[in-house]
Order: sequence, then structure tokens, then C-alpha cells
Amino acid sequence: MKIMKFSAISCLLAFVVINGVMPALTIAGGLIDMGYGSRGGSMLSASIRSKEPIQPIPISFDDDRAKIELGKKLFFEPRLSKSGWISCNSCHNLSTGGADNLPSSIGHKWLFGPINSPTVLNAKFNLAQFWDGRAKDLKEQAGGPIANPMEMAATHELAVSVLQSIPEYVGWFKEVYGDEKIDIDRVTDAIAAFEETLTTPNSRFDLWLRGYDRISQSEEEGYALFKDKGCIDCHNGFGVGGNSFQKFGIVKPYDKDTQTLGRYNVTKNEKDTYVFKVPLLRNIALTAPYFHDASTWNLSEAVNVMAEYQLGITLTEDETNKIVAFLQTLTGDQPSIIFPILPPSNENTQKPNRN
Amino acid sequence: MKIMKFSAISCLLAFVVINGVMPALTIAGGLIDMGYGSRGGSMLSASIRSKEPIQPIPISFDDDRAKIELGKKLFFEPRLSKSGWISCNSCHNLSTGGADNLPSSIGHKWLFGPINSPTVLNAKFNLAQFWDGRAKDLKEQAGGPIANPMEMAATHELAVSVLQSIPEYVGWFKEVYGDEKIDIDRVTDAIAAFEETLTTPNSRFDLWLRGYDRISQSEEEGYALFKDKGCIDCHNGFGVGGNSFQKFGIVKPYDKDTQTLGRYNVTKNEKDTYVFKVPLLRNIALTAPYFHDASTWNLSEAVNVMAEYQLGITLTEDETNKIVAFLQTLTGDQPSIIFPILPPSNENTQKPNRN
Repeated sequence: MKIMKFSAISCLLAFVVINGVMPALTIAGGLIDMGYGSRGGSMLSASIRSKEPIQPIPISFDDDRAKIELGKKLFFEPRLSKSGWISCNSCHNLSTGGADNLPSSIGHKWLFGPINSPTVLNAKFNLAQFWDGRAKDLKEQAGGPIANPMEMAATHELAVSVLQSIPEYVGWFKEVYGDEKIDIDRVTDAIAAFEETLTTPNSRFDLWLRGYDRISQSEEEGYALFKDKGCIDCHNGFGVGGNSFQKFGIVKPYDKDTQTLGRYNVTKNEKDTYVFKVPLLRNIALTAPYFHDASTWNLSEAVNVMAEYQLGITLTEDETNKIVAFLQTLTGDQPSIIFPILPPSNENTQKPNRN
Repeated sequence: MKIMKFSAISCLLAFVVINGVMPALTIAGGLIDMGYGSRGGSMLSASIRSKEPIQPIPISFDDDRAKIELGKKLFFEPRLSKSGWISCNSCHNLSTGGADNLPSSIGHKWLFGPINSPTVLNAKFNLAQFWDGRAKDLKEQAGGPIANPMEMAATHELAVSVLQSIPEYVGWFKEVYGDEKIDIDRVTDAIAAFEETLTTPNSRFDLWLRGYDRISQSEEEGYALFKDKGCIDCHNGFGVGGNSFQKFGIVKPYDKDTQTLGRYNVTKNEKDTYVFKVPLLRNIALTAPYFHDASTWNLSEAVNVMAEYQLGITLTEDETNKIVAFLQTLTGDQPSIIFPILPPSNENTQKPNRN
């Protein structure tokens, strides 16, 4: 009897541990490196509202964990900058919505960039990178700031030589790429692999799309207005934007910033003047100030500016409020990141230069 | 029979899960927020070499997790600075040994501080904070950089008002302190509580002190030299330093930096000229450049300078190498930190000012 009782207790204990404790620990631990917050995540990508023009962010885990982990280290690596003080995260801060929330970024020697830094969260859903789309993907983007004298102010050669001097990096590159070569192509490839993981699934809107959760009546009415008024024409898809270039000032010439020419700088085509990549509206509540010129910190005002310049309409206060309420449902689970421990420099490492 | 077999398998499974899988998951997950790295940690504080003048870092977990979590957010909070861009972590980077590894820190408007920033790791073992000991503890220290015009360049009033404007912070302060009041006293109290957790146990040297691990013959000889030559007179205790003030230039006037007066600035006592808090040697391999004036990036050279100016001796190359080998055993497990997700600003939040 005693043995049977012990067996029964063991069974119960095993059941509890395997079904109760382990999944909890897995959420808290195993997935934490690239995890998706406390609400957990479903692997389902199907949506019961699959005909809607906005799709829920898929939850996927890249298999190449070694590359992602290397990319994470590089994303937080201040020694990719001339000063040894500025990293990708300095301007795309994963604590604050993947952006610095400044009018434009502070760079080397406190220089100010010419344009608002977009969030890195969900940036994989953009058809191209930068406001003018001059980088075709995240990998191409990642090389830009490292060598921009107003940002990290290094050169690709300097950044690579710093990594080459550190044996731990040499080992990690070999582990990921099969040999010890470190070049800017591999550096940006790894950074991009990490950035690909920086999506924000499980927003309340996505859970509603999937039929798992409700949104309030105001929010649902806001979404209906967002579609009816025409916002949806540019802000759709996984990113609720990011998948087209559009002129800022379609129905009324944009008069607040006439200096920034946008996509014209890439194509040199007159019709691309003031054309910009449509920004993602995912997590828009986290990333004021708004627009390429950071001309407003207020989401309601941003909605009204869009209505005026892009749609040629005036929204009532109630309509604006409802659209803003809808936009706030787009805030998802931000990535839970274990802050990387970076290997030390040594006598072969180029010294930082603050000047 | 089948039931017995099932019971036996269940027992086995329970045994495996409880004894094998759960501890592994606990190391990977449960302790991760304030965790101590992959080598895990013993709760024992006893040392089999308990008569040695260096004590192993105790492994302890503060019970006030809510305060520590709040302090972590504040440590990484760039909005405590005028620009909204500089946080405690900017200069005490937990990715890079708790320091910025620059000659001196870069602050607001790219101003350079007058002295090398010490690491925040194990800073709790210092008898006072700053090189001149002008702050009596971590809490008093934390208020300094926030209001220093060459560092974060805010005022305490500004920093507090930013936090007061953000409902999540108001809730967290209430949770920790019992009411919604936010003031600089509570802000620095929470930051200090987080910093108290930033110790680095389980260095190879500590494991040797505890009798769990060996160090090499060279390292052990280096430790013997460290004691015999007199380094131990100032560098002892938990922090291998940090527990006394000493003149830089005891036997030979220090001639590389005669501008920085050290503790004299606090006491206005002539005999405190060039007197500094003895720095911790824990993780010294991670935190070049060395000395208050960052006059060398090379640990061997730093050891030789100490021998010359503090002890009046000349070490042979072999002796220096062995002492350096010993110092390298002092690198412990750096804290594993989940990068905090900070709540967004809103219309009531003071805007960042980069100027």
C-alpha cells in the first residue's frame, strides 16, 4: 500500500511538474533570450479574420540561434563606433520601443542626425530601410550608421579590426560562418539576423484578429474609421505600413519641412520629391515624436495631419479619438532580451577615440 | 504488473525531471533576472581558506525583488538625463564590465568627465563612492551623475517630474514604498538596491578560496607574490580593494597627474592631497584603462606602476606576469540582466532637451 501510495504521489508530482512547472519555466527561461513577453505566444499564424487588410504578426523562432546571439552582441557593441560608446542600441533602444524617441538621433561628438530614427521593432516588415528606402534590407541598413560620421563615426575597417582583435568574437564568427573571417558583410548579416527576431506579436489587435480576445467598441469603431477614411490604403499588412512609398502631401503640399527630399535622393526622379517609406504603425504609441521631421509628439495631432495632408479630410474629435484608440491596440509584446556580456578588449584592440 | 511498471517509470521520470531538468531550468530561467551566470552558484559563504586576507564574494539574493526591479529600470532609464539619451548604464555599462572603458566618461553635449569612471560591479564593497569618496554609499552616489552638467545634466526635480508623469512608474513606486510619492531619495534608494545586486561571485580565485577549484601554479605563485610584496596591504577583503583611502605615490611622488587632488577636495586637509579610494581589483581584466587618470591600458604596466610608486620596488618580468595571472583569476560571473522594457512618455512628460 505504501509503495502504491508513493507511486501515486510520484505520478501526481510528475504530472504537476511536467504539465505545470515546466511550461512556466520554459516561458520564463528557455525562450527568454528571444522571448515574447509574459503573455506567451501561439504558434498559430491563422487568423479567424483572415480577410482583414492587416495581418497578425507571425510568431516564429529562427533556428540559427548562434547567429542571432552573435548579432545581439554586435547590436549592443559600443566598440563598433569610433568613440567606443555608441552602439546600434543607442539610437534603437530596445528599452524604449526600439527607438530613441528624440527628434533626431544624437551621434558622435553630439551631432544631430537630419531625420527621426525609425524603430527597429518589426523593421523586417519594411519593403526597404531608412525613410528614403536607400537600403534594400536590414543587412544593408546595418552598415550605414557604423560608418556615418554623424552617427557611430567609425569605418567598416575599424569596426571589423576591433572584432578581429578579440578572440571570443573570432570564435563566434567561426562557429556561425564556418571560418574565422570577419568582414562587414558577416557583421551586418549577424546584426540583421538578430533584428529579424525583433517583432512584437500578441498585440491586443492581433489577438482580436485571431479571435482570442476582444477590443473595445471604441477601438473597433476606430478600426472601422481607419479603413473607411482611407488610412488603410497605405497602412496595412503585417506592419500596418512599411510596404509602400508615398508622397507626404498627397492632397495638400506638406509645408512643415520642405528641406528633406525623401526618396528623390535615391532615385533623382522629380516625382519622388517628398516621397517617403510609409512608416509602420505597430507600437506607434511608444515611439513619439512622429513623422520623419518629428513635427509632433502627439498621436492625435499626427492622425489629424495625415487626414489633412494625405486624405484631404477633417476628422471630428470623436473620430480622431477612436482612431487613436485603435492605434493603441497595436502595441505588442516587446522582445525580452538578456543583456549581452561582451568580451574585453586587449592590447591588440584599437583604442576608442572620443574626438 | 503494468501499473507497477507505469508507476516505476513515473517515479523515474519524476526523479529525472525534479533532479535533472528543473535545476537546469532554474539556472537558465528562475534566477536569470539577477542571476550569476552559467557556472551557477553555491549558497555557502564559508571558505576553506578562511584565513586568507581576501574573502570570496558571498552569494545572496535580496528579498525585495520589486525594489530591485524598479532600480533596474531606473538604472537603464535615459529620461533621467536632460537629453533623454544618457542613463546610468551609459557610463557603467553592464555589457562591458560595469564601466565604459574610456579614459573618462562622455556626458551631455559630449563633454568629457575629469576622471576615469569606476565599475559599478561590486561597488557595494567600497567604503565610500567616487574616487575621492565624496558619497558615503551607492544611494548618495546615484544622485550625483543625474544632476552633473557634464554627465546626465538634468536636475533632480526634472528627473523626478519625468517619472511622476508616467503612470507605470507611479504604480511601481507605490508598490515598493507604500505610497505614490516619487522623490530623489526614493529614486536613488531603488537604484542603489539594484546596484547592490551587481556582484560577481564564482571567480576562479573565489572557487579556489572555497576549495572547489584549482588555480594554476603561476596564478598561485602570483597570489603569493601579491601578498609577499605588499599589494595585499591595500587590496584585500571581498573587493580586493575598496576598503581604504591611500595616497597615490606613497614612496615616490606620483608625477603623471598632479591636477587631480583626490580626497583633499572632500576634507580640505593637506595630507589628503593625492589620496584616493583604493580601487577594487575584482574583474580588473575587464576594465582598462587603469587608475583615476587612465594613464595606462596595460595591466602589467599598472602593476609595475603600483610597485614603483606605492611599494618602492621593481618587479621582475616573471613576477609581474605571475601577479597579472593571479589578477585575471578575479574575473567573476557578471550579472545576467533581462534588459528592461520602459514605459512610454506621454503628453505630460517633459520633452528631452539635447542642448
